[in-house]
Amino acid sequence: MPTIVVDVMPKAELLDPQGKATTGALNRLGHTKFENVRIGKRFELTVDGEVTAEVLAEVRKVADEILSNSVIEDVVSITVDGVPAGEAQ
Amino acid sequence: MPTIVVDVMPKAELLDPQGKATTGALNRLGHTKFENVRIGKRFELTVDGEVTAEVLAEVRKVADEILSNSVIEDVVSITVDGVPAGEAQ
Repeated sequence: MPTIVVDVMPKAELLDPQGKATTGALNRLGHTKFENVRIGKRFELTVDGEVTAEVLAEVRKVADEILSNSVIEDVVSITVDGVPAGEAQ
Repeated sequence: MPTIVVDVMPKAELLDPQGKATTGALNRLGHTKFENVRIGKRFELTVDGEVTAEVLAEVRKVADEILSNSVIEDVVSITVDGVPAGEAQ
């Protein structure tokens, strides 16, 4: 069954406290090469049947309206079995 | 500055309650095409300087030991500016 991956990240202009804490922890542990860490979500959706244009449109809608909170997050990519599905937005 | 993306997912053999709840919600809302949803994490690490083999080795170590919990999670991919960085494990 095809798997669609939706990646959601906090908006660039917002602070990401989780990421900030991780950056601090990495640096304290001696991993000073890492300037910044941001943490988002990765959704793997298993689809019943073929991935048609209609299914992709539904995925886009679901990604924008249900899987992400558009006030604070952006859908950064949607891929089908590793292949980018056009523009995420 | 180069960005390295580390994707972490709950292990396939484990239940993913967050994903299960999302699958249920999608189906209740009429999006019945989605059989299953699993939710993982996406880390975007900004690196100071070039991404050498040494930096990649450090990223792999950090991904396995700090960013993921190997008891319940797998590092499923590591990419540098969109290009897969060899085997994640």
